[in-house]
Amino acid sequence: MADRLEDLARAFERFPGIGPRQARRFVYHLLGATPSDRSRMADLITNLANDVRQCTECMRFANGGALVCTYCSDTTRDDSQLLVVEKDQDLLALERAGSYRGRYFVLGGVLTLSGKGVIREKELLRATERRLPKGLTEIILALSATSEGENTVDHLRLILTPYRDKVKLTELGRGLATGSELEYSDAETLSGALQNRKET
Amino acid sequence: MADRLEDLARAFERFPGIGPRQARRFVYHLLGATPSDRSRMADLITNLANDVRQCTECMRFANGGALVCTYCSDTTRDDSQLLVVEKDQDLLALERAGSYRGRYFVLGGVLTLSGKGVIREKELLRATERRLPKGLTEIILALSATSEGENTVDHLRLILTPYRDKVKLTELGRGLATGSELEYSDAETLSGALQNRKET
Amino acid sequence: MADRLEDLARAFERFPGIGPRQARRFVYHLLGATPSDRSRMADLITNLANDVRQCTECMRFANGGALVCTYCSDTTRDDSQLLVVEKDQDLLALERAGSYRGRYFVLGGVLTLSGKGVIREKELLRATERRLPKGLTEIILALSATSEGENTVDHLRLILTPYRDKVKLTELGRGLATGSELEYSDAETLSGALQNRKET
Amino acid sequence: MADRLEDLARAFERFPGIGPRQARRFVYHLLGATPSDRSRMADLITNLANDVRQCTECMRFANGGALVCTYCSDTTRDDSQLLVVEKDQDLLALERAGSYRGRYFVLGGVLTLSGKGVIREKELLRATERRLPKGLTEIILALSATSEGENTVDHLRLILTPYRDKVKLTELGRGLATGSELEYSDAETLSGALQNRKET
Repeated sequence: MADRLEDLARAFERFPGIGPRQARRFVYHLLGATPSDRSRMADLITNLANDVRQCTECMRFANGGALVCTYCSDTTRDDSQLLVVEKDQDLLALERAGSYRGRYFVLGGVLTLSGKGVIREKELLRATERRLPKGLTEIILALSATSEGENTVDHLRLILTPYRDKVKLTELGRGLATGSELEYSDAETLSGALQNRKET
Repeated sequence: MADRLEDLARAFERFPGIGPRQARRFVYHLLGATPSDRSRMADLITNLANDVRQCTECMRFANGGALVCTYCSDTTRDDSQLLVVEKDQDLLALERAGSYRGRYFVLGGVLTLSGKGVIREKELLRATERRLPKGLTEIILALSATSEGENTVDHLRLILTPYRDKVKLTELGRGLATGSELEYSDAETLSGALQNRKET
Repeated sequence: MADRLEDLARAFERFPGIGPRQARRFVYHLLGATPSDRSRMADLITNLANDVRQCTECMRFANGGALVCTYCSDTTRDDSQLLVVEKDQDLLALERAGSYRGRYFVLGGVLTLSGKGVIREKELLRATERRLPKGLTEIILALSATSEGENTVDHLRLILTPYRDKVKLTELGRGLATGSELEYSDAETLSGALQNRKET
Repeated sequence: MADRLEDLARAFERFPGIGPRQARRFVYHLLGATPSDRSRMADLITNLANDVRQCTECMRFANGGALVCTYCSDTTRDDSQLLVVEKDQDLLALERAGSYRGRYFVLGGVLTLSGKGVIREKELLRATERRLPKGLTEIILALSATSEGENTVDHLRLILTPYRDKVKLTELGRGLATGSELEYSDAETLSGALQNRKET
């Protein structure tokens, strides 16, 4: 007989940030749960793709049966801006911040320093083409301030070059993040913070 | 429509050591998986209780259809010793160490300092009764060297008092654990290490 | 006889970030050093105030016998800007970044949330008065992006109110610090990053 | 003029566990101290070797003018045991634990895996010779449960071989240290804990 316990532990090991030991703890957690809790979880996992679909415009995963998500179909949002993020969670963080009212595109990943990584390149180009007639004038490359993020910005700038006569490419401003201390900040952060200083 | 994505995230939040953010990452990980990977995982979770059962002797979870697990049915193991651990993973750590050849009992938990916690008390008493005629002479209370572990040892010592004329109660020895530095060791660890010193 | 070893350990305990154990390690480190190394260190400590003096303009500690430090006496620096930092190390971090060419003032501390803390308030007002005739037009309140930093900015804004008709008060810009990930950034950081976005 | 501030920072950088940034913080801490606090610290450092001397028996550093420290001159301590530790702080930890009443020897270091490191080898042999007529029967090699500690035990066992007919060599017992959890313990710790189990 196959070792189901081990099979499930190995499936949990593929979860982000989970090692062999925590994967086994998950299995024992499920063994200690009630059969109805287990079958409910199995049900949620099986039906995830039925209930949650990928928006054909921004590529994010969203609940509901519609082809286009609520942010993409919301006619009050600003069509002149398209903000490109790495992943769904980044988009949700920006929505929580509440200061952006334009459109989104989820890249689905970043490029490593050696240029590896799968990103939705063709889909981004298509989204750009589709949004141009609607008044698109700016694409905000909102990647993280990490070397992978910067590398991805460099690549996107390259493939979006053909649109630069119609569309302005921007990236997020550098500065002090909440909790940053001057003493431990690097030159780029400090220079950005100085340059972006504002009247108080 | 119910928010399935949120429901699944909340189920993952109940996993040991998982907060709201990592729970959401798990959901997005599953959304990015293939439908066949998802249905395989759902299948493993649903059938977990069919394939894995709790041994009626030691209470651990084990693969296979048998009522009694391989350690409990192994006739070459020593019936004179019964080692009590908190959880399945502790038992597996001891098996990996390879120096114990007696029987096991999994308590299923520990008692907190305020005496709270669910442990398999009645089952332990029953296992003791059942093992006495087979030659049981020692119960090793192998709990962790934490305050909860010590509290649980105190309680077990109490409820096992009626058997002390036939059975010796022992607990694990204190000493230097791998990596321990003398300078940072407390009095109990150092005293145990000194008392348990061995010729070299 | 007094316990010199303990006395020295207690003196090291007052060093920033040093607990009793590390303080003792320092003492044993010095006991293991050569007498000439020890007397050299003692000499450096004794003469610290002779060799290093506090600049009468910016209040930072600097080598050399001059009353005014090299940054304050440098005639090529911009007299229209005065940048206020908490401590000497912040000033040095900004100099390393190399993007600021104005004047400095070291506040010597921050105010806690309950308004406690010793800062060079009078000295700042005097420095402002002194710099106004030289063409001062902007005071940059370059405190850390922490609650203490923000509290101190609030207080400085208040006491500098009388100069606001002649001098613009600014604070450092918020945005992504190097290493910041969108997913884990708070609303203020993200809003700052969006607002301060720049063409790429 | 020499940069005294930098010289002192570099001296602090040689302190155990101190990097360039914290070394500079120490200098600024001293700059902010009163001249009398600074001169008192300088004085303590200069006179450290006058007030604290290395015991000629156990090699530890101790206050007072005597050649031999209080532990070595205490006639109520057990002359049959000599316990060898790496450093003064380990000896103090054992004294705090209060369960050892024999004699000590401080090795002054450990050997790395490649056999490097300075230890008081000749002094240990001399101490052994000196203690044999006084009734020495056991040398306890009380090194940390780290690879360096084990390597040092191996080396000491070798150089003490000539005395093994008169003196028993022992090392500290392995087991659960305070806070150890079974699940995360390695084979050697668990085997030691089982072997050293005691009646409860």
